[in-house]
Amino acid sequence: MPGTSKRDGAKCNVALLGFGTVGSSVARILCDRSNAHLRLTHILNRNVARKKVDWLPSSVRWTENIDDVLSSDVDIVVEVMGGLQPTEDWIRRALQSGKSVVTANKQLIARFGPALISLARQMKQQIQFGASVAGGVPVISGLHDGLAGDELYKIRGILNGTCNYILSQIESNGVPFAVALREAQKLGFAEADPTEDIDGLDARAKLAILARVGLHCNVKAESIVARSISAVDAVDFEYAKQLGCTIRQISWAELKTESIEKADAKSKQKSKPKSKEDGLFAAVQPALVELSSPLARVEGSQNLVMATGKYGGETVFGGHGAGGHPTAVAVVSDILAISHAKQSGTNYAAPSVETTPTVTADFTTMHYLRFTVKDRPGIIASLAIILSKYNINIDAVVQKPGCPKTHLPFLITLEDCKASLVEKALQQINALDFMLQPCLHLPIL
Amino acid sequence: MPGTSKRDGAKCNVALLGFGTVGSSVARILCDRSNAHLRLTHILNRNVARKKVDWLPSSVRWTENIDDVLSSDVDIVVEVMGGLQPTEDWIRRALQSGKSVVTANKQLIARFGPALISLARQMKQQIQFGASVAGGVPVISGLHDGLAGDELYKIRGILNGTCNYILSQIESNGVPFAVALREAQKLGFAEADPTEDIDGLDARAKLAILARVGLHCNVKAESIVARSISAVDAVDFEYAKQLGCTIRQISWAELKTESIEKADAKSKQKSKPKSKEDGLFAAVQPALVELSSPLARVEGSQNLVMATGKYGGETVFGGHGAGGHPTAVAVVSDILAISHAKQSGTNYAAPSVETTPTVTADFTTMHYLRFTVKDRPGIIASLAIILSKYNINIDAVVQKPGCPKTHLPFLITLEDCKASLVEKALQQINALDFMLQPCLHLPIL
Repeated sequence: MPGTSKRDGAKCNVALLGFGTVGSSVARILCDRSNAHLRLTHILNRNVARKKVDWLPSSVRWTENIDDVLSSDVDIVVEVMGGLQPTEDWIRRALQSGKSVVTANKQLIARFGPALISLARQMKQQIQFGASVAGGVPVISGLHDGLAGDELYKIRGILNGTCNYILSQIESNGVPFAVALREAQKLGFAEADPTEDIDGLDARAKLAILARVGLHCNVKAESIVARSISAVDAVDFEYAKQLGCTIRQISWAELKTESIEKADAKSKQKSKPKSKEDGLFAAVQPALVELSSPLARVEGSQNLVMATGKYGGETVFGGHGAGGHPTAVAVVSDILAISHAKQSGTNYAAPSVETTPTVTADFTTMHYLRFTVKDRPGIIASLAIILSKYNINIDAVVQKPGCPKTHLPFLITLEDCKASLVEKALQQINALDFMLQPCLHLPIL
Repeated sequence: MPGTSKRDGAKCNVALLGFGTVGSSVARILCDRSNAHLRLTHILNRNVARKKVDWLPSSVRWTENIDDVLSSDVDIVVEVMGGLQPTEDWIRRALQSGKSVVTANKQLIARFGPALISLARQMKQQIQFGASVAGGVPVISGLHDGLAGDELYKIRGILNGTCNYILSQIESNGVPFAVALREAQKLGFAEADPTEDIDGLDARAKLAILARVGLHCNVKAESIVARSISAVDAVDFEYAKQLGCTIRQISWAELKTESIEKADAKSKQKSKPKSKEDGLFAAVQPALVELSSPLARVEGSQNLVMATGKYGGETVFGGHGAGGHPTAVAVVSDILAISHAKQSGTNYAAPSVETTPTVTADFTTMHYLRFTVKDRPGIIASLAIILSKYNINIDAVVQKPGCPKTHLPFLITLEDCKASLVEKALQQINALDFMLQPCLHLPIL
């Protein structure tokens, strides 16, 4: 019986669905592991003849047909082909065929994660997805296991290397957004159609996964507001610097409940029971972050996640968020976790209690408003009147010298208030005759 | 049968040995967890009447006698009392009584870890020690599980918050070492006898544990060179800054083998089989780190670990390295991991292959030499002649203006060479008549 032999330390058979950058890195690591009990037995890809390589053992079976994999004695199916279909269908069938699954597919897990996890449980199999967020950075296992003893209530991160690269380039070279994007595309850091990255759709799928794993909130990616970084320009970095900040695409999810408070080590009173009824703040958006924050120091295409817990405070995970080899490390770590569990006969751990909160992006923060106007007397007065109507307090007005009066960018910072209030005021403001383009509104974290 | 009922999601009983800062934080978290299946049943402490608190359920049994715990139906014994004896004896007896163990005791794990793990395996129990390194930062599970798919070859970290606090104070306030230490003692950041921290004995125990978990090297803490930070003074931070660096107590372990090379994504050749025969570089010492490095930015008593792998590159884990609540998070995460495994009937994972390498601190790096001399003509010449005899190349000579000739601190940096070579040259140099104190020799990382 295979079940018995596994427990005796027998080989664990692995199939790869997809032999692109990540797939071939996974194959390489599996081959390199000298004393491993893992055995790569199948590789599935379209046009498989074109894909074959000579550095893999001849025992590996190359196929274009998923049924070859499903009917085999493969123990773990590794999905690194991407896309939603036929991927989801194949993963379901793999689980139903009594195979465990490892996937690096963030969109798939963001959308079908809970259903697939529940199917896996039912089939007494596992599905692991450590590579779906932040590539080689072990943040999924960090939140799920390493910080299991805490009650996390806030997760902030830089989850998209493309945006971080583009923003870093605008910052260091003072180039316009469009130029930085073109450069990133030329170097292969951004795709021909960069929408998924630039508009935050990639990062919000990852944030939805982190909110599920770390905050036990069942959130749909679509319910998370995502704002594009495309309106950010070089002048904004100049102004941000004057405020001691820089600009990054920040993914932020935070439990809204009043009762999750930082534990006070001195207080011996039992804290109030936690409740997640109150909902979840969540958004992916360009934001100002203090230069002293770890978020400000993430370079190039690196990723970083900061998790904040009631007891342990802030914990940081950082590293390579993309690339074949780092992503493959996360995939192989998942394969190893499953194979160890299979050896000892473990089923999937009990489901954690999840809530399905209402999601809002209506954070209370300070705000950065960058106006571009045709200058004339009375502009500040007009803006101040509208802002005061909404009870919004101005913190500072900053205007860098030497800009043309016909196209004048200047900055107003606001004291702490709700984003929705600012948006209402801006609707009115954007209609004013001196406004050359809509005001750029960023939160200051 | 208890074994059967556990699998049905029955309660998991926990005993605490030690009710100090960490112990009471663990108790608080266990109490706060509303839907937990964990039940705190025993607390052992000396002078237990003095320790009793009113916020714990009356069902908790307080005792001074370890036999009360060992003969009970406790499933997991949590050791947070510290020290080597009777702790080791009690942990052995707990394992032998069929209980799993969680400990936060770095000295104990550094010294007896392998023997206790092997005993646990024999008894089909687990011993977890996530809190023994870097407090709340989940670096043990990160290296063991999250990065399991990589081949790690280098670990660098700031593992002692006391030293980091003292060095930060010297840096930002320009005070002498002795003043910074006294201040740290006054604030409770350093102990009355600070030797363990200052001289690196605390950090090297942690480094020995990380080398075992991450590099699979069975290293004795005593075999790791530890150098004190007590010779570092304010002037060294001034010179370091001129080199674009700061000074931190760095724990560093690196596999010495030639064959562990960074994987080249483009190369399709199978890499050479790895070998750890060549030994391990390991040391805990004050060192210069570039200001742009994450190691330079660790503030106050925070901890940070950077792990470098053949495939995944550099991964960073950072957060609160000490304190009751953060350490308790690591302890409770370990308790949860064991209780999940118990529920599903898992035994401890198969032992990883460990080597017992020879350990050396003879890193090849650039070097920082700070001399304190009674000035007279010909000093540089004398030093240069001795250094050249050892084939050591001088990189730069730096002398800050305005120092008294009678007590002149100046700096020589050296190009890459072995630390042992520099030490040999310094033996000769320290005997020269113009030397007012031994040269301070720090590696530049």
